[in-house]
Amino acid sequence: MNTEKKIKTLIVKKPLKLDCGKTIKDFPIAYETYGSLNSKKDNAILVFHALTGDQFVTGINPITNKEGWWSYAVGPDKAIDTKKYFVICSNVIGGCMGSYGPSHKNSDQKIFGTNFPVITINDMVNAQYNLLDHFGIDKLFSITGGSMGGMQVLQFISNFPDKSKTVIPIATTSSHSAQNIAFNELGRQAITADSNWKDGNYTSKETNPGKGLAVARMAAHITYLSKKGLQEKFGRKLQEREDLKFGFDADFQIESYLRYQGSVFVDRFDANSYLYITRAMDYFDLAKQFNGNLSEAFTNTKAKFFIISFTSDWLYPTQENKDIVIALNSIGADVGFVEIVSDKGHDSFLLDVPDFLNALKNFLDKSYEEN
Amino acid sequence: MNTEKKIKTLIVKKPLKLDCGKTIKDFPIAYETYGSLNSKKDNAILVFHALTGDQFVTGINPITNKEGWWSYAVGPDKAIDTKKYFVICSNVIGGCMGSYGPSHKNSDQKIFGTNFPVITINDMVNAQYNLLDHFGIDKLFSITGGSMGGMQVLQFISNFPDKSKTVIPIATTSSHSAQNIAFNELGRQAITADSNWKDGNYTSKETNPGKGLAVARMAAHITYLSKKGLQEKFGRKLQEREDLKFGFDADFQIESYLRYQGSVFVDRFDANSYLYITRAMDYFDLAKQFNGNLSEAFTNTKAKFFIISFTSDWLYPTQENKDIVIALNSIGADVGFVEIVSDKGHDSFLLDVPDFLNALKNFLDKSYEEN
Repeated sequence: MNTEKKIKTLIVKKPLKLDCGKTIKDFPIAYETYGSLNSKKDNAILVFHALTGDQFVTGINPITNKEGWWSYAVGPDKAIDTKKYFVICSNVIGGCMGSYGPSHKNSDQKIFGTNFPVITINDMVNAQYNLLDHFGIDKLFSITGGSMGGMQVLQFISNFPDKSKTVIPIATTSSHSAQNIAFNELGRQAITADSNWKDGNYTSKETNPGKGLAVARMAAHITYLSKKGLQEKFGRKLQEREDLKFGFDADFQIESYLRYQGSVFVDRFDANSYLYITRAMDYFDLAKQFNGNLSEAFTNTKAKFFIISFTSDWLYPTQENKDIVIALNSIGADVGFVEIVSDKGHDSFLLDVPDFLNALKNFLDKSYEEN
Repeated sequence: MNTEKKIKTLIVKKPLKLDCGKTIKDFPIAYETYGSLNSKKDNAILVFHALTGDQFVTGINPITNKEGWWSYAVGPDKAIDTKKYFVICSNVIGGCMGSYGPSHKNSDQKIFGTNFPVITINDMVNAQYNLLDHFGIDKLFSITGGSMGGMQVLQFISNFPDKSKTVIPIATTSSHSAQNIAFNELGRQAITADSNWKDGNYTSKETNPGKGLAVARMAAHITYLSKKGLQEKFGRKLQEREDLKFGFDADFQIESYLRYQGSVFVDRFDANSYLYITRAMDYFDLAKQFNGNLSEAFTNTKAKFFIISFTSDWLYPTQENKDIVIALNSIGADVGFVEIVSDKGHDSFLLDVPDFLNALKNFLDKSYEEN
């Protein structure tokens, strides 16, 4: 397949015991890198992607032919300056961009579907840890990511407390709330309600549960934007018409926009991966791993934290980010925090929000000078 | 059908010209009443129901055998005291509890489906106005309703400025926001994605788009509850299990709750009605009917307004209710306003929220004494 040529893959030989109890080995981790690793190997930044992201952080994604998901933040002279830093990002396990996931085949050469093991955020970061050995990196300069990427950041530094100098969780939470779980469950129900889902045993692009996946995407997309942002961008503007048509076509621009978001997503994402990754997010509860005490997740690290939230993010609101700051403060950790004013909702971390990008750049560059 | 015996129906002979341009006549309005109309006929309250409500306001709904949707507020000695007031409520046109809707048959004895005309909030209240003639009521004592019920309240008093002494819109808006439209569109997409929808031409309970309708209901249900309320009620509590099961069953109580809400809704609601009623809500923009000046909707009425919002309602937040107050204030209308503190979200108006119920009761009883 032509696609596979464009995807760099590390085959992890070492067995990995998953939280569900199963052990996997000889599994692929698909990754991409930007910039160059310096001779001291102290300029590497591991970026973790969000629910629907992948390893193609910046530049043109060779599979979708669209801009990488963090092009605003990562690149030459950008906040995460690839002239200075060596950026690594890998597709999470459970994903559908080359890493071990439900669309892969089992030892009997059958597609896993829902026979793929249920994975966790912990499993994801343990799998990705193998990239450090692969590149011969003893200690990363930084780890960062927004949303589910931020969850991985928190889990990574908890699991490997001396493996990163700085830690930047963005627009995230240490534990999925009931509302977060509710929206993810809504997405899963939309997928499994599609008669083409067939208990996960769909086999071709033509017969996949694309309609259900599109609905799941629309639901999630609404949560990524703020009410105010939606109102300012779309309001009640009509879609290429002078007045209401008294029918069920997309009269309003917001309807047309959502339908478009659903349809393009289906082209690049696998429905079963959507089930597995949302499940991992819902299972995430870092405090629970430490008997309810979030601070204990971080007692062994001397890393410097910088936590960023956005005023209009109602999916992972500032308070949930602050809870992480409070847990770190209570053990005297080195932690900075900034709440960025933005109407762009949860998606702010992916967009051109200068205050955010400047804060990220300044923290990284200043910390790097202290090296 | 046994069901039909339990439903009181007024056949409206008079032609009604709909906003879409079509005219309907000889159409049914299903209604219910509670309490008694007094000899002066000055104690009638017209209650308008929300998206998924019906005419069975209080007591046991004879069709579903469950409590009526506003049982907390309406009944003997309750906020809307049926010992004192004569309460009328009718199913909106477009609905599925007896009033003219998409599950009815056209003149060729074929079920309308999506051949039913697209109706508006304006059409709904114009249809319901016929109930006043039916009961020989010249002027209502009050009109009230929450959510879409509140939209009908606003439209009714705008259309018939001298037909109610008091006006109580609750947890509502004068215009559907982009986020409101987005959530409704999500529900419609979930329904139309169901292969059983068949362009609206499903004909039996067995082959109806129940899965899609359940997903639509789940989506809406999340918007009815506040993030904080969900967290307090469900948090990350597990559903009848000691620990996570690493599968896709409902591990969390919130998942089980949503699935239940979806499944029971399907038993009592019609998918095409869901499409039509959400469309009417999205089309609602009272200011637009008056060249963008909301105040002008109310210039001809001397009614006494009382507007109620809830702190944790993020579907129709306090600000959108206040915008109505502001429009009324700017023309010197008689308007009171209260924001009730509640964690129960938009659903607060349907629940046992004593501050709300007391405010409603006091306003009604005091206004009635002034009669």
